[in-house]
Amino acid sequence: MSRFFSEKYASLTPYTPGEQPRDNQYVKLNTNESPFPPSPNGLRLAQEAAAKLQLYSDPECRDLVAKAAEVFGVAEDEILFTNGSDEILNFAFMAFCDENHPAVFPDITYGFYKVFAALNGIPYEEIPLTEDLTIDPQQYHGIGKTVVIANPNAPTGTVLTLAQIEDILKSNPHNVVIIDEAYVDFGAESAVPLTRKYDNLLVTGTFSKSRSLAGGRLGYGIGCKALIGDLNTIKYATNPYNVNRMTMAAGVGVLMDEDYTKTNCQTIMQVRQWTKAQLQNAGFTLTDSKANFLFAKHPKADGKEIYLRLKQKGVLIRHFDSPRLCQYNRITVGTKEQMEVFLRKLQEVLEELL
Amino acid sequence: MSRFFSEKYASLTPYTPGEQPRDNQYVKLNTNESPFPPSPNGLRLAQEAAAKLQLYSDPECRDLVAKAAEVFGVAEDEILFTNGSDEILNFAFMAFCDENHPAVFPDITYGFYKVFAALNGIPYEEIPLTEDLTIDPQQYHGIGKTVVIANPNAPTGTVLTLAQIEDILKSNPHNVVIIDEAYVDFGAESAVPLTRKYDNLLVTGTFSKSRSLAGGRLGYGIGCKALIGDLNTIKYATNPYNVNRMTMAAGVGVLMDEDYTKTNCQTIMQVRQWTKAQLQNAGFTLTDSKANFLFAKHPKADGKEIYLRLKQKGVLIRHFDSPRLCQYNRITVGTKEQMEVFLRKLQEVLEELL
Repeated sequence: MSRFFSEKYASLTPYTPGEQPRDNQYVKLNTNESPFPPSPNGLRLAQEAAAKLQLYSDPECRDLVAKAAEVFGVAEDEILFTNGSDEILNFAFMAFCDENHPAVFPDITYGFYKVFAALNGIPYEEIPLTEDLTIDPQQYHGIGKTVVIANPNAPTGTVLTLAQIEDILKSNPHNVVIIDEAYVDFGAESAVPLTRKYDNLLVTGTFSKSRSLAGGRLGYGIGCKALIGDLNTIKYATNPYNVNRMTMAAGVGVLMDEDYTKTNCQTIMQVRQWTKAQLQNAGFTLTDSKANFLFAKHPKADGKEIYLRLKQKGVLIRHFDSPRLCQYNRITVGTKEQMEVFLRKLQEVLEELL
Repeated sequence: MSRFFSEKYASLTPYTPGEQPRDNQYVKLNTNESPFPPSPNGLRLAQEAAAKLQLYSDPECRDLVAKAAEVFGVAEDEILFTNGSDEILNFAFMAFCDENHPAVFPDITYGFYKVFAALNGIPYEEIPLTEDLTIDPQQYHGIGKTVVIANPNAPTGTVLTLAQIEDILKSNPHNVVIIDEAYVDFGAESAVPLTRKYDNLLVTGTFSKSRSLAGGRLGYGIGCKALIGDLNTIKYATNPYNVNRMTMAAGVGVLMDEDYTKTNCQTIMQVRQWTKAQLQNAGFTLTDSKANFLFAKHPKADGKEIYLRLKQKGVLIRHFDSPRLCQYNRITVGTKEQMEVFLRKLQEVLEELL
């Protein structure tokens, strides 16, 4: 730390992203990326846009907003795009949380929520997941705080139903409820239709997972016009040209190819079920994940040991060191071929350990 | 504003970017973009990178940092990249300003500085430019605040010498001095070499102007290792994957083509001098701009009227409504052909008005 660093941030603990090795020596199942390339139109439009990089991107993202409004079934003033969904989440913490509106989220969820709270000086409460690592929605009823729930949750992959989300919305009419749908396309129900009914609902999402644009950085928020207006106020006071030309064009392109996205999601869901069955056969216990990852522990093999030994064998999965999670590993669902390699190497590890 | 918007931001006035018309009907001289396309390697590498968008970008930007460190003559831990230079500027306001370290900058400068201060709840002082619209560096000596100076300044284009900047650095040893070099490549001296000598100097820059990547969004900060470490703490608590894969690759590519950049800058400086002479012949008064824009007023024709009439004729320049600037217009220096159109249309306007 320099002698100039503001004491506001002196104790800030930043988020630790998953390893991003530059070489391609790993079967990379650690950051929930799609195993499929960007869609044909996504790739084509991004490459075309590169030729005009000397011109600023459209701060209003009009072409992308128009296409997304059509695909998501909302009005153009009910959606806003950001540089990845981390940016929309940060904007939402800025806009809708403060000393008088603390945040509340599960103790086990996307690790960035507590970083956003700390960054913005926002008090927050963490509600423990139940014994079986699921969210008890009743614990959020009438809580009177800004609720942040990932649905599916991470790294567990479990989901709430729309009825359960609606009960949380109804019982907290004076607070914003943020539903983070980063993984929604792999088997959960989207709360986007509820944004027309509840003015306190913000749905956030990303093109990083189901739409194969992790490296493009494209996130979004959907909510009533007034909420989106507030988030735009933050955006225009932070980084008006936050989405670059190539990513904006790629976003339009992938939304032209929704069939491609749906087919990929179906494939991943099938591979998820197959991999889960194999892991259960090998003695693993798993949460009921509806995301593009599995969350698994073995009764007799240490979670960190499994992670480290798989890494030595060229398979990268994600391990978390916190007390409730350290026996588990999060495994991104890749292609069938990738999962076969993973399972083969895992079998070797288990033979070493057991 | 929604009923949920935090009162912290209730009175926030966002930045107003220059108009970004989607059609191509204008000779666009209003946002200081380069008239030249991205360099050949920049374009090629960006397009190649689009094919791997399913994978996250490298949060450490290692390839880009390595290449930039070589080009800028600094160490790899003395530079950090951001999503445009607005992001590095916001990070710097966050990291190095607070209640106890107010900001200070000229009253006429990049309009976003006061927005960043307001966004982050930072008190700030504006020091008026002199009568001839230049910065008096002595007014910043021993000021004991975080100094933010654009060099060249905007929208005036005037410059400080390195000796003048060094005096400001020496006389404010307990405060960070931020030199915003967005326009440095068109005739000013870069303060980057001084970052090896002063631990309180942060130089910020952008690839938007001289390097033709406005639509790619690529900014950077250069300073001693400790300052860059603080800015990385903010980055990893805000948006670790802040630079997308395509832009990162484009950045490497344009840094491989420094001769292309230098040639373009030389051309723009020549066209600037030619355009300036034409404007002086037409009766305009201009500041001594060393940037890729001119700042000009006419003794007998109203600034706003000139702007509006040029727009009707298909030429877009930038007008500012504030009292000290409203007789001026800022005109981006484009190609010789673009400036000929501008001057021809301007002549028509003057004939209408005088």
